[in-house]
Amino acid sequence: MRFAVQSRLEYEVKSPTVFILNVEAAALRRQRIIAQRLQLTPGYAIERFAEDEGGSRFLRVIANPGSFSVAYAGEVEVNMIEKEPAGISEVPVGELPLDILPYLNPSRFCQSDLLGRFARREFGELEPGHNRVNAICSWIHDHVDYERGSSDAQTSAYDTMVLRAGVCRDFAHLGIAFCRALNIPARFASGYAWQLDPPDFHAVFEAYLGGEWYLFDATRQAALQGLVRIGVGRDAADAAFATIYGDAEFKGMSVGIEAVSPDAEEEPTVRAVAVG
Amino acid sequence: MRFAVQSRLEYEVKSPTVFILNVEAAALRRQRIIAQRLQLTPGYAIERFAEDEGGSRFLRVIANPGSFSVAYAGEVEVNMIEKEPAGISEVPVGELPLDILPYLNPSRFCQSDLLGRFARREFGELEPGHNRVNAICSWIHDHVDYERGSSDAQTSAYDTMVLRAGVCRDFAHLGIAFCRALNIPARFASGYAWQLDPPDFHAVFEAYLGGEWYLFDATRQAALQGLVRIGVGRDAADAAFATIYGDAEFKGMSVGIEAVSPDAEEEPTVRAVAVG
Amino acid sequence: MRFAVQSRLEYEVKSPTVFILNVEAAALRRQRIIAQRLQLTPGYAIERFAEDEGGSRFLRVIANPGSFSVAYAGEVEVNMIEKEPAGISEVPVGELPLDILPYLNPSRFCQSDLLGRFARREFGELEPGHNRVNAICSWIHDHVDYERGSSDAQTSAYDTMVLRAGVCRDFAHLGIAFCRALNIPARFASGYAWQLDPPDFHAVFEAYLGGEWYLFDATRQAALQGLVRIGVGRDAADAAFATIYGDAEFKGMSVGIEAVSPDAEEEPTVRAVAVG
Amino acid sequence: MRFAVQSRLEYEVKSPTVFILNVEAAALRRQRIIAQRLQLTPGYAIERFAEDEGGSRFLRVIANPGSFSVAYAGEVEVNMIEKEPAGISEVPVGELPLDILPYLNPSRFCQSDLLGRFARREFGELEPGHNRVNAICSWIHDHVDYERGSSDAQTSAYDTMVLRAGVCRDFAHLGIAFCRALNIPARFASGYAWQLDPPDFHAVFEAYLGGEWYLFDATRQAALQGLVRIGVGRDAADAAFATIYGDAEFKGMSVGIEAVSPDAEEEPTVRAVAVG
Repeated sequence: MRFAVQSRLEYEVKSPTVFILNVEAAALRRQRIIAQRLQLTPGYAIERFAEDEGGSRFLRVIANPGSFSVAYAGEVEVNMIEKEPAGISEVPVGELPLDILPYLNPSRFCQSDLLGRFARREFGELEPGHNRVNAICSWIHDHVDYERGSSDAQTSAYDTMVLRAGVCRDFAHLGIAFCRALNIPARFASGYAWQLDPPDFHAVFEAYLGGEWYLFDATRQAALQGLVRIGVGRDAADAAFATIYGDAEFKGMSVGIEAVSPDAEEEPTVRAVAVG
Repeated sequence: MRFAVQSRLEYEVKSPTVFILNVEAAALRRQRIIAQRLQLTPGYAIERFAEDEGGSRFLRVIANPGSFSVAYAGEVEVNMIEKEPAGISEVPVGELPLDILPYLNPSRFCQSDLLGRFARREFGELEPGHNRVNAICSWIHDHVDYERGSSDAQTSAYDTMVLRAGVCRDFAHLGIAFCRALNIPARFASGYAWQLDPPDFHAVFEAYLGGEWYLFDATRQAALQGLVRIGVGRDAADAAFATIYGDAEFKGMSVGIEAVSPDAEEEPTVRAVAVG
Repeated sequence: MRFAVQSRLEYEVKSPTVFILNVEAAALRRQRIIAQRLQLTPGYAIERFAEDEGGSRFLRVIANPGSFSVAYAGEVEVNMIEKEPAGISEVPVGELPLDILPYLNPSRFCQSDLLGRFARREFGELEPGHNRVNAICSWIHDHVDYERGSSDAQTSAYDTMVLRAGVCRDFAHLGIAFCRALNIPARFASGYAWQLDPPDFHAVFEAYLGGEWYLFDATRQAALQGLVRIGVGRDAADAAFATIYGDAEFKGMSVGIEAVSPDAEEEPTVRAVAVG
Repeated sequence: MRFAVQSRLEYEVKSPTVFILNVEAAALRRQRIIAQRLQLTPGYAIERFAEDEGGSRFLRVIANPGSFSVAYAGEVEVNMIEKEPAGISEVPVGELPLDILPYLNPSRFCQSDLLGRFARREFGELEPGHNRVNAICSWIHDHVDYERGSSDAQTSAYDTMVLRAGVCRDFAHLGIAFCRALNIPARFASGYAWQLDPPDFHAVFEAYLGGEWYLFDATRQAALQGLVRIGVGRDAADAAFATIYGDAEFKGMSVGIEAVSPDAEEEPTVRAVAVG
């Protein structure tokens, strides 16, 4: 499928400020950038760097006092692999590619070391594989309230496990923590999410199964085939759309995604979706 | 039923030290002290004070450097009320006796304010009453591992909710927190527990239902009819068997309880047990 | 000194709701109520109960759907004891009145058990007495930012110790936790605070020294001689101005206090202030 | 300087278990491996992988039930850069190499996002550079007790900030968190530490200053010039000497390091030490 995505961030900069921005669609094997345009106002110089592991494309911009806006628009072709969930197995730790191992470690917002007993109690007896990770998502969906304003930028999986409310990033963090606790590598992914209502940046997670990274959305709000990924990382600490070093006030944002390919209206299937 | 209880605490005191001890059976309407003996070695002076609300009998002793032991033995008649659980209802907050209201507040180890959403999700739809509190105990019993050494004196209900392991005091704290979150007054009770194996001080909790305080043991390890209560409080912070201000090393302890009345061997029933 | 105090709370009640209100000036040995008027609109029935220890006067009201307001006005004579701080000593635990001992225990928002090492390191070498507690207040004032909106109703002393920002209740909680960690009994006090700008309910703490409860305000914002206490408790969990069981939306409030006695304009001194 | 290092880990394996081991000296530009020998008993197959960023050399071994030991011995030449601390500046975020930026992010044990206000209050006014990071180390050394057994594998910088006790890894985590909070990239390093008494694996941290990674040891226990690094990572989650997936009991370990070069006895200087 092909999507047109766009976002716009607006700031009022008070003193010279460094922005690390992560809003561009990632250039990935299964996510091809057809066209794109990034417009900064004023037209500050940009430094780009791609994070190897997940293809995130970061920009560094130094902005001076005054209004500052970042507008991005792109057309992206997403060709995810869809498979029967039943046949997708977990990879034993002894057989994991070695560069995947760091995604078993606990991270700032995903304290898998503390959630291990719960994860093994609740999910340990389930048959390993894609269906088990899907069961994790169902558990989160059924046991955590999706509620705007119920969490903040400091909320971690540990907190969400008790407080039982959050937004997409909290759902992703909890899913990641459970997977890692079960020795399933997992990572955080941000993106433009087709059919998400209201439109916003979205957060999901990826689990490494059967030799591929598969997408999971415990909020059940977006179509996985329609996720244009911006970046991935260990958790939200690695994938903020904007990290600001200096003094700038956030003034507003808009995010949009539309399907532009002929098959856009087909119903999302329930098959497993891998990003390669 | 009538019980013979005994305990012995031993310390090596390094410098003059104040002990606040809470080892004597409480004098309560439904718990009658037949005989008792407290022996301190050396024979330091004792100051006694009873905490009105729960009948806990605290001792204050100032010990000098050297060995120090506290030996208590008592014979206690316990006459709890046993009722059919089905008929025991909750008391609406608007009708609670006003001196009961503090037991709705969160406390050090029972952060009921943070556990509210979970408690309402999990237990909110159950029919109010003794059976609901019993369902809370069953949930704890089924979802938390009883494991010595898995928690420490700082572990709170918030932690246990995530870590899913603990000992009797952690089980009690979680039960108290859930009850308060559901507007059921609840408090911590320590005691000598008949049939507890191995023998030790035990911790349970009490919930205020139908105008009485009812006993609950989420560990399911002891017979409620055979609990000789030492004291009660908001949580373990109020009911330590020994609080030490100074420098004393704990050297060992023994705890014992035996049934001495003719009906001692009868099987504990499954009825609700109130302490009045 | 004599003060006129008033407060008004407004709610929109959605379903029958129990309010536990704590807005009346406490009737204390050194705080005499000259006149007062409580007006509920609508004029619901009131149940009153006083909490023995601290003199807090709680009201229970059951409100039906619709607008609900609570207006309180009183004239109160406050006769605190003022003393030279230098002569006020701490009371050894072995000599504390026994009913004071619970104020050494950790509580929901004052985890003195976890803050002990810090408290002893920072304040342990200071000479015991009123001046030491004042040094605790100075430390808090100098190391924690007073910032509205930086904390919420779940913030505890443990958090404030790391986050270093809060409002009056957080300052009080930290002071209480430090005192208890040093074996100084301490408790939370809410009140109407003369010269507090902008006017609001205020929170301070009391430490038990030399046989009296002394007032301390780590925010340094109000005149201690001008504090008309509403209530006291272990921490904010015991002294909320309104605890709501049901469904009611807070619509607004006003709080006021004015000095009405001839000596009202004299400058607050720097002497220690005890509430008896 | 040239060092002979050795370590030995012993386990009793209960069921087939995957070990990820990180005990070999890292191969780094300024740390040259002269000779080394790794001996597994039994002689299981080894998979090796190096983590690019920090040069950590991980081994994956699958062990069968029975005794299992890992013995490593190496001779390593360490040629760190020593400089005058006064001339070593911080690098503005806008000029940091882009692959260094992830070391500004909070991580599992280094919640720099929560410690920011404290770090800015305490260290924000100090002149930027090596001396500021050294001041951070002095603060930690002076405000945290080094005490074996006072922390565990779950203890984070957030906890240490309150509890004020820990071991080398806790000291390193707190240093890293403070640096990141001040926009100084920082990472965790484990190693063999010359002159550490008693001998053990050691943990220190590295801060990115003036274009190099500089070593810091807030415990002040080891000579920085004598640190043979094993690996680096965001925090201890990335640099465990052994991560075990399966069921194996730790039976014991030994760690050793000796200086073998002629200049080994010279006194460590107080100059800044960079690892390049």
